[in-house]
Amino acid sequence: MGGLTVLSALRREMPGEQFLYLGDTARLPYGTKSPATVQRYAAQAAATLVERGIKALVVACNTASGLALKYLEQQFPDVPVYGVVLPGAEAAVAAARAGAPGRVVVLATESTIQGGAYQRALAQLAPQLEVHGRACPLWVTLAEMGPQPSELTRAILAHGVGPYVSMGACTFLLGCTHFPVFSGELQALVPDATLIDSAATTAAVVARRLNQAALAGTSAIGGGAAFLATDGAARFRQVGGHFLGESIAEVELVDL
Amino acid sequence: MGGLTVLSALRREMPGEQFLYLGDTARLPYGTKSPATVQRYAAQAAATLVERGIKALVVACNTASGLALKYLEQQFPDVPVYGVVLPGAEAAVAAARAGAPGRVVVLATESTIQGGAYQRALAQLAPQLEVHGRACPLWVTLAEMGPQPSELTRAILAHGVGPYVSMGACTFLLGCTHFPVFSGELQALVPDATLIDSAATTAAVVARRLNQAALAGTSAIGGGAAFLATDGAARFRQVGGHFLGESIAEVELVDL
Repeated sequence: MGGLTVLSALRREMPGEQFLYLGDTARLPYGTKSPATVQRYAAQAAATLVERGIKALVVACNTASGLALKYLEQQFPDVPVYGVVLPGAEAAVAAARAGAPGRVVVLATESTIQGGAYQRALAQLAPQLEVHGRACPLWVTLAEMGPQPSELTRAILAHGVGPYVSMGACTFLLGCTHFPVFSGELQALVPDATLIDSAATTAAVVARRLNQAALAGTSAIGGGAAFLATDGAARFRQVGGHFLGESIAEVELVDL
Repeated sequence: MGGLTVLSALRREMPGEQFLYLGDTARLPYGTKSPATVQRYAAQAAATLVERGIKALVVACNTASGLALKYLEQQFPDVPVYGVVLPGAEAAVAAARAGAPGRVVVLATESTIQGGAYQRALAQLAPQLEVHGRACPLWVTLAEMGPQPSELTRAILAHGVGPYVSMGACTFLLGCTHFPVFSGELQALVPDATLIDSAATTAAVVARRLNQAALAGTSAIGGGAAFLATDGAARFRQVGGHFLGESIAEVELVDL
């Protein structure tokens, strides 16, 4: 579901491209699964897309990017594979350097935090940064429920960022593709902080890399998007529209 | 995970029995999946248990009980299959008849509410009852996080029962096996209401049926429990202990 915020950013960045989106709705969420299972599921999903002739693969899920990116690169050597972790980490480092104190809080799923992909990426880019990881599993559920009373939303968001607000943290990295739907409410809770949205940063990086690799679309017809899901087409259309920011007309069910 | 509250009740009710528990942790939660997928996954899980020689099967999940009980009975005609929906519905009807007004609110996952198994069972048992269904997806996530600040817990529980408190509802049926961990906090929110815990009511029914079918254990050695899971043995032990109410020593990983 959350990957749709990445698709939305990709379409804004590259309006002429054709996108094929696969949501593994039968087996979501990946955020509580082990690395081996995430790798296996991600490779099955990628194989379905590769068979349909994609020119590049965007792993629009932080859990899968953190745990399965190298595995996917090995399994599919002929297709460039882009993840969401490195673009988010790079943008967070730039923001943390611009402000003070040099402190980044990664807000993500349990698996992403425990897997440590963001912490490693940040440590490699800027070893002097102070990095905190915070698992926010309620945010994923809340995002999938669609708009809720602001009192409830505020209580759940405040529980996530609370410990770091009093610490004076200034850069929050939204390390889960579900979280951009809360950008406005989060910014209101932490008005002085910089929020890094890994969906937007990823879209910019993918556009640049496709151009560098001479893979960017040159069609004058304009782009589009088609949707595959592994379960619950009706729920995918309904909940997915909330993340994509526009309605989803047709969903093809596939079995992985 | 939630099924462990049912196991806990079953062990209290039948301390002499041997239990074999399977948690499909790789593919949880079932609560957002379609009926066809829940049936397929439930049958795979049941097959693993039947192969290991169980004498009876308890479907300790409301979603699977609501969507896959008949399917499991057809697939495994030689093993008695017990669900959690009918015992919970029977206890709710008894409580609603004892009090006034005759109104039952089913608190459950999205799939259980949409599947309508509780609503159908209640309508069949007592057609004059007023029945409301309320999906509480945040409660599942919150339960799996373990104990949290009471302020957060209260906000999330109050959001679930809120609309019905002002309506004067008097019987709340906890139609998800995760929810008994909130019994105390919920009762404090709705002090005049009756809470029906489908785990406890199911255990009483299963014990009675095993006796009637002459299947009850006669071992003098005392019972025990063994645990299978499809992913994340460490997380299963840690989170599961919270639901079971005692620590889980060993977990065998199985692939379905």
